[in-house]
Amino acid sequence: MTMTHSFPSLDAFRAALAEQPGIDAQAIAAADAHNGQLTKPPGALGRLEDLALWYRGWRGGPLAEIGAPQVIVFAGNHGVTARGVSAFPPEVTEQMVLNFQHGGAAINQLARVNGATLDVVALELDHPTQDFTHAPAMDEAGFLKALQAGWDAVDASADLLVVGEMGIGNTTSAAALACALLGGDAAEWTGRGTGVDDAGLRTKTTVVAEGVARHGGQGDGLEILRRLGGRELAAMAGAMARARMLRIPVVLDGFICCAAALALARTQDGALDHAVAGHLSAEGGHARLLAALGKEPLLRLDLRLGEASGGALAIAVMKAAMACHAGMATFAQAGVSDG
Amino acid sequence: MTMTHSFPSLDAFRAALAEQPGIDAQAIAAADAHNGQLTKPPGALGRLEDLALWYRGWRGGPLAEIGAPQVIVFAGNHGVTARGVSAFPPEVTEQMVLNFQHGGAAINQLARVNGATLDVVALELDHPTQDFTHAPAMDEAGFLKALQAGWDAVDASADLLVVGEMGIGNTTSAAALACALLGGDAAEWTGRGTGVDDAGLRTKTTVVAEGVARHGGQGDGLEILRRLGGRELAAMAGAMARARMLRIPVVLDGFICCAAALALARTQDGALDHAVAGHLSAEGGHARLLAALGKEPLLRLDLRLGEASGGALAIAVMKAAMACHAGMATFAQAGVSDG
Repeated sequence: MTMTHSFPSLDAFRAALAEQPGIDAQAIAAADAHNGQLTKPPGALGRLEDLALWYRGWRGGPLAEIGAPQVIVFAGNHGVTARGVSAFPPEVTEQMVLNFQHGGAAINQLARVNGATLDVVALELDHPTQDFTHAPAMDEAGFLKALQAGWDAVDASADLLVVGEMGIGNTTSAAALACALLGGDAAEWTGRGTGVDDAGLRTKTTVVAEGVARHGGQGDGLEILRRLGGRELAAMAGAMARARMLRIPVVLDGFICCAAALALARTQDGALDHAVAGHLSAEGGHARLLAALGKEPLLRLDLRLGEASGGALAIAVMKAAMACHAGMATFAQAGVSDG
Repeated sequence: MTMTHSFPSLDAFRAALAEQPGIDAQAIAAADAHNGQLTKPPGALGRLEDLALWYRGWRGGPLAEIGAPQVIVFAGNHGVTARGVSAFPPEVTEQMVLNFQHGGAAINQLARVNGATLDVVALELDHPTQDFTHAPAMDEAGFLKALQAGWDAVDASADLLVVGEMGIGNTTSAAALACALLGGDAAEWTGRGTGVDDAGLRTKTTVVAEGVARHGGQGDGLEILRRLGGRELAAMAGAMARARMLRIPVVLDGFICCAAALALARTQDGALDHAVAGHLSAEGGHARLLAALGKEPLLRLDLRLGEASGGALAIAVMKAAMACHAGMATFAQAGVSDG
């Protein structure tokens, strides 16, 4: 990985978002022309064809399959866990980071079977963010540091990026973020996360409502992310922004990842155009988040794990799309009549 | 592959279907107990967990990942193509078989990226089946030969099987089969296949209706398959039945594959219990076929190619499910608090 840029301020980060590259219409046109010659009825590969054109539009360059996907899992701890918002104790964040490092978690298996590298970035786990019902989760320096950690974690030689998270309490953070950015009642955005019981869900909903009451409307997407997010959410946003600069297409994971994505999209129009939704999770608010992002999920398998798991699973769909696009013979090459 | 059995008659094949092994409840219980100890919140891997239990219930034996998936594409030609039911000429069946053999088709890429072997079995392409509007598509000997070809094509050392087909005109055959077995109007079951125009669709619907009028109600699923199917549909049914004897779970492909599966399921209750639906295709009747089979598709990507493409894509989901189930650490192994 190359450390290309260090942001002196949040406004410098905002300025970088405003200068992001767009999709390459010429690359899409070339991909479309190539696609039309492949040995299949027009459109018969359905969404795989759309994905291939979109992918080539972002990557540009010569025809190639996806060979170097990167998965990054960011981990952070949350002050709001003191309020009893999770079914698991906060120590589990660090325990799971060790599990990632030892290869024992779901994401290790999912990255492996999809040929992806897996990087795990633990963000000051000994220092949870502030309880957002009392104060902003992060001050500007701390937030910037987390954004930068995400930015720096992206491998410039990757050709697909999946970002995900681990952080006990972070569905609470994501629910507050989504509610503050999109409106509605706290209850509509608050789900069971890893599996809180009814009493836990009531507490969690109250905490989300308190956070939104305190911080809602206090600035743009990034500012709300600073106030209600966590370090792992900020880092995911930083990684997505860096991937855009590098023209690396991104596969989004679940509810928490998409809440971080929304904070970027609400800061800069089109900031997530280089991202596709990996899956629809079982966390209730995820469908609404995807709708707000304008993304149709690739998979619907009722996952609700986080850790980039659904995004990593969707790497298989992206690889398949590009394998067909780059590997198939044309009608002329194969001597097949084209109807 | 081992040639275990040669069927002297269709009744002998029916008898084999009646003696198929069932799922192993003890293996499922063991898998369920193991699943409950893995480092994730209960149920957080959603459908992947259900798939892992189901897979282990069929396979039994020690905990193992999926390492030897087999894809088989059967190809056949259809007498009804003379009626103008396809957007492509019948020569394309053989041209595509050559394309499969040379590695240029979509299924070659999809099998490759999913680590599957690909076998292609061309079934008497020089001798199309009879036009089913005039006579049964196959006589009993010819039908039995096609079933046997499918049976023999399954690799006994495979640990997952995907069957698919190539055959210009075979959505017409599948539509007639589905309509004869499930009822309804020919128009409800007749889709555009590889892309017929409006006039072609009208012709195709008429042909389907004529076939159903002639052969509907003339026997059980296998008999209707003989009358309205094609050699590649019969071979897919034979392969699915053989996989069941070998306790190899099957991933179904699209409309045509599922029509062949339905013929088995209507011959013997539960004959498809060892199969999962790989995807929901864009061919209109597929959703109804899946509902009749009682299968919820793993993927919805608007494919309508056939060639086992959707089933092959779903191998990635099955591999992911078993990679998590077999590869993840338990709470005790990882030293993670289990809530």
